[in-house]
Formats: sequence, structure tokens, C-alpha cells
Amino acid sequence: MARIYNFSAGPSMLPEAVLRQAQQEMLDWQGSSMSVMEMSHRGKEFMAIAETMKNDLVELMAIPDNYKVLFLQGGATAQFAMIPQNILNGKSKACYVNTGAWSTSAIKEAGKYCEVGIAASSEDSKFTTIPDFASWSIDPDAAYLHYTSNETIHGVEFNEIPDAKGLPLVCDMSSNILSRPVDVSRYGIIYAGTQKNMGPSGVTVVIVREDLVGLAPKTVPSVFNYEQQAKSDSMLNTPATYNWYLLGLVLQWLKAEGGVAAIEQRNLQKADKLYRAIDASSLYSNPVAKACRSRMNVPFVLADESLDKEFLALAEKNGLGSLKGHRSVGGMRASIYNAMPETGVDALIEFMAEFERTH
Amino acid sequence: MARIYNFSAGPSMLPEAVLRQAQQEMLDWQGSSMSVMEMSHRGKEFMAIAETMKNDLVELMAIPDNYKVLFLQGGATAQFAMIPQNILNGKSKACYVNTGAWSTSAIKEAGKYCEVGIAASSEDSKFTTIPDFASWSIDPDAAYLHYTSNETIHGVEFNEIPDAKGLPLVCDMSSNILSRPVDVSRYGIIYAGTQKNMGPSGVTVVIVREDLVGLAPKTVPSVFNYEQQAKSDSMLNTPATYNWYLLGLVLQWLKAEGGVAAIEQRNLQKADKLYRAIDASSLYSNPVAKACRSRMNVPFVLADESLDKEFLALAEKNGLGSLKGHRSVGGMRASIYNAMPETGVDALIEFMAEFERTH
Repeated sequence: MARIYNFSAGPSMLPEAVLRQAQQEMLDWQGSSMSVMEMSHRGKEFMAIAETMKNDLVELMAIPDNYKVLFLQGGATAQFAMIPQNILNGKSKACYVNTGAWSTSAIKEAGKYCEVGIAASSEDSKFTTIPDFASWSIDPDAAYLHYTSNETIHGVEFNEIPDAKGLPLVCDMSSNILSRPVDVSRYGIIYAGTQKNMGPSGVTVVIVREDLVGLAPKTVPSVFNYEQQAKSDSMLNTPATYNWYLLGLVLQWLKAEGGVAAIEQRNLQKADKLYRAIDASSLYSNPVAKACRSRMNVPFVLADESLDKEFLALAEKNGLGSLKGHRSVGGMRASIYNAMPETGVDALIEFMAEFERTH
Repeated sequence: MARIYNFSAGPSMLPEAVLRQAQQEMLDWQGSSMSVMEMSHRGKEFMAIAETMKNDLVELMAIPDNYKVLFLQGGATAQFAMIPQNILNGKSKACYVNTGAWSTSAIKEAGKYCEVGIAASSEDSKFTTIPDFASWSIDPDAAYLHYTSNETIHGVEFNEIPDAKGLPLVCDMSSNILSRPVDVSRYGIIYAGTQKNMGPSGVTVVIVREDLVGLAPKTVPSVFNYEQQAKSDSMLNTPATYNWYLLGLVLQWLKAEGGVAAIEQRNLQKADKLYRAIDASSLYSNPVAKACRSRMNVPFVLADESLDKEFLALAEKNGLGSLKGHRSVGGMRASIYNAMPETGVDALIEFMAEFERTH
């Protein structure tokens, strides 16, 4: 069986070594005579899996001691509500930066709970830029500043951490977490769905600075309360145990690959060669300003839109899957997360060149 | 490798055939050259998996057309909040029946959103009975009546559907869904975590009658809003795709076994012989009134508590796992869900008899 190169934006390609280990352990995890998915979440076997997974994440991201690390459900979309519900702390305003579709969704949901001030927006450029930090308008009375470090749909990524002017900085890191080193201590909250760089879907990693835990009013649903979740080690309700295990396998793989700094070099190389190929071609183009092009999600359009269908069909035949762009942007999108090997990007570049030559 | 008989209350034993199929398809689902967990949730392969899974559940439970079937996250604990948040519909009260630990948790959470009237409680009997339906006090001004059809910890199960006196009847069916036929049309809402009779943890099945969809105030978080989830086919946020797939495999297994009516006969037989063995012994006892003993969770205590440790250690050695009772009840608990074969119950009975003979 030949595996395809899967450019899906998430759920997305996983390291083959992870899948092989999960396959091998499916009916019997390390002599326990049970599948991980059959284990009680309170049993010693699963508790050991959970602890190792959490420790590996703390190590890989160098998460300081004064942060709680939670493994929740409901995706980033649940966090869009949980953040204002938990950390407004009596204030009536929050600041958001709008750099694309996911920022926009976060802003819309936050509007249910507070007044949302837009500190900066790149909507005028059709989300192809990041507004200069100096131009940001950050309200000192806001409870926090929220931004999206990588816009999965628009292919825009922050290369620097913004200055939140003293507010807690909250970041949706769903599509670039663990792809590059990050100074966690700069953040109030980092959150990310697992289905891009960390494993299958079904878990949301939430890293919360301790002073932001315990501020929720009593009317917040228990599963949405950071303090209750932290106190119960994210086991307030039965966690998605098998998903935790798979997340753990991905983290072990990442450690074996050399960790976040090593994977960043590979990600830089992959993104760099793909953007160079696009820029050098007269058929393909990427609209994003060079300084903020995403290393993870590379959207591109064909000069002649009528070729899209054929491009996708031929790509599929050549073992290059899920290249169709998001409906809101059109064209193509190559998501090249940690698990996409450089050979996959090489194969895509070669296919694109051949397609251009023959069309 | 010998598989153990795993009596865990959930996550719990799964059919070996399901695990074998998942193992075989791990790197390549039906020629797609992808693992299911790598597939885009919007792609045609996963959409087909999701549709089959949903249709199989509708078929197995004979769910009428006027119900929405949702596959959410957050477990029953999230539903404890979502139900009042969605269906109070301007009313200030809801009625709850308290028959054990899980009812108690549901009541506590509902208290954040409304006045909770206790229609009936078996707390006086230490949750070993179900109060006679005739004695229930159902407030006609309440928005709904909630009960727990099987108490996983206390081992108490309803054998009849209560009369809700015209209120929408809401049921936490987490630990006995699909174990016996149920007339869905009698209910307003049925909900259940998957980790007992339906697969691994990480999905909550919610079956909602259409007239209860669309009543939530705008301030309810989007992922908690039945209407928004129904409109997006439970894909408002990226669903736990691999968990949906595994749920689908369990449903296919159940169909192949003859469906819910056939599995009920097997469950009756398993429970009946285990209770008979307990009642016939002078070492073991079960405190629950015979008319409401659970077919799924069989708690029992040893006459001499000091033997507990040895019992558990010896059981483990004999391939009988996770028999320790919940800390709030003590003693032992054998959870014998659909996936526990009759040979597992036979092995447990034999072990218990041998242990009694030698102690």
C-alpha cells in the first residue's frame, strides 16, 4: 500500500511511525491485554499514558511552572466562548485582532459576552497582510488581547509575538503550535485544536497562566470552567482517552525528530521551496505579503481558474491529496504541517511544474 | 496475546472484531491510502463514514423522523448544562428524579440555570431503589422532567419509561443505550456518552425532538447550541472524526449481532446468571432492590471487606480486570456492557465461586 501525501488543512497527515505504533498496540497496549481505548481513564495504565503525554508537551514547549495545561473538548470554537466566559473578570471589553476567517469567528462568538474592540484588522487587504504592530489600538480597559497566530484559511502567519501593552495575551495557535519555538511566558492563554500538528481531532490543548484560572462566574458550565478542569486534571468528564494517547505518540515522535527547533528548520525549508516555486511560475500565485506568509498553509490560485478541476484530479492521481482551497478563498491550498515530509513538498512542486509545462 | 475480560465501567471493553478492523484499516481505509484520522472531515470519504454511522444508529434505535441526531463533545457532563441552557424556553423550573450519583451531578449543574424541583428521590434508601412512579411529584410548570435510566455507580436501572405528565422527558442513557429496545418517541431528549456501549470516549450522542431545537437564547455558546449543531450536522467545530468512525464500527458490529433486541436477550442472560450467583452465595451481596437491578453495572460487596484486595489481585491474575467498585460505594463492580461476552461473565462467576470456596 502506497500512502498518499495528504495536504488536508486538518484533520491532516500524521507521521507514519505514529500510525504504525497505534496499529501494533491496537489490541494490546504494552502487555496490558487491552486496547488503550478500552482502559478506564482512572486506571494506572491510562494515568501513566496521560502523565507522559502532558510532560512531553511541557518539555517540548518549555511551558513554565505557573501555567496549567488542559486537554479539553469542543475545539477552538469552544474556546471562543470559554475565554470571555472565564477571564473577563468583571470587565466589559476585550480586544481582538482580525487577520482572517478564524479571527473573525472568534470575534463573533466573543460578542455574545462582551464589547469587542478591534485593535487591528487586515480586512481591507482581503486578509493578505498583518497590520503593523505600531498601528494597533489596544484599549487599556480591555480584559485581554486576542489574536490568531496562523490563519489556516488565508495562509497568514505571525512571525513575532505582538506586544499586548500589559493585557493578558490570548492566542489561537491551532494551526501552528509546535511548528516553531514559542516563548510561552509572553502569553496569558494559548489554545489549539490537535488536528493539525498534534494528532487526530477531538482534543483542545489549553495552556493558561495561573492568574487567569479561577476568575469565572459560577454560572459558567462546569466543563467550560478552567478552574474546575484544572482541579480535576482535565478529567471532569471522561476525557477522549484514545485521542490523548495518539497526541502522546505524536509528541514522542516530535521529540525523536529533534523537537520544536529541529522541526522549525524543516518547516522553513519546506515552505521556502514551495513559495519560491509559486513565485517563479506564471501559472500559480499566492496573494499574501511575503513577511507574513504561513509556513503551514500555502494557498495559491491558478491564473486560469478553469484549470482547477483538472489540476485537482491529476494531483489526486499522482498521490497528492486534499489540495482544494477553502471555498471562501478558492483555488488550492497545500497544508504542510510537521508530519508532511519534505519529499511530499518536492513531489508537489514537481507535479505543479509538470502541470504548468503541459497546460 | 490473550485478551482479558475487562469489567471497567467506561471506557470499557470493545468487541474484538471492531478492534481488529480498526487495526487493519489504520494506515489505509478502504483503498484511500489514508488513515481515517487523517481525513478531512469535509472530504467525501469521511462524509460517507459519518452518514453510514448516523443511519445505522437511526436504524438500530428506530429513531423517528422528527428527531435530530447529534454527535457532540464534552460528555454527559456538558449535557447537564446544555439541556437547561437550551430548553428552559423562558421557564424558571425543571424537574429531576434523583436515583444515584449521576442524577445528583445533573441536578447540581442544572441548579446554575434554574430552580430544580426533585420529583422523586431514592436517597433515603442509599440509592438502592426507584421510587414508585405513582409517588412522583411532577410540577406542571417545569420545562422538562429529567432522569437517569441507568445509574453506573449504584447499579440501578429503570425497566419502564416514566410518565412525564406532559412535560418533555429528558434521559441520561449513557450507560444503557443500545442495550435494550427503547421507544424513542416517548422522549424529548436522549443523551449518552459513547464510552460504555458505543465505542471509545470522546463523543456524546444527543437525540433531540425537533420542537426542542431552536429554543436557546443567543447568549448560549455556539458549540452548546442544539440548533447551530443540528444545522451544521454536528460539524460546527471539527468533530472527533476517528471516534465517529469507531462508533460506526461498533454499530455495524451490533447490527451483525442481530441488533438491539438480540443483544437485550444476551444482556438479560448475562445479568441474570451473575445476580443469581451473588444471591446464592454467602460471601457476596448486592444491595439493590431486585426490580431495579442494573443489567449493565453489577456492584457487589464481600461480607469481609478485608478480602477485597486479595479478590482484586487474584481476579486480575485470572484475566478479569477492572473489578474495583467506585470509591463512593466500595466493594466490586462488574460492568457487563454489550461487548462483554457471556464467556466473560461465566469466567467471573467461576472465579467468584472458587474464591468463596477457598476463603
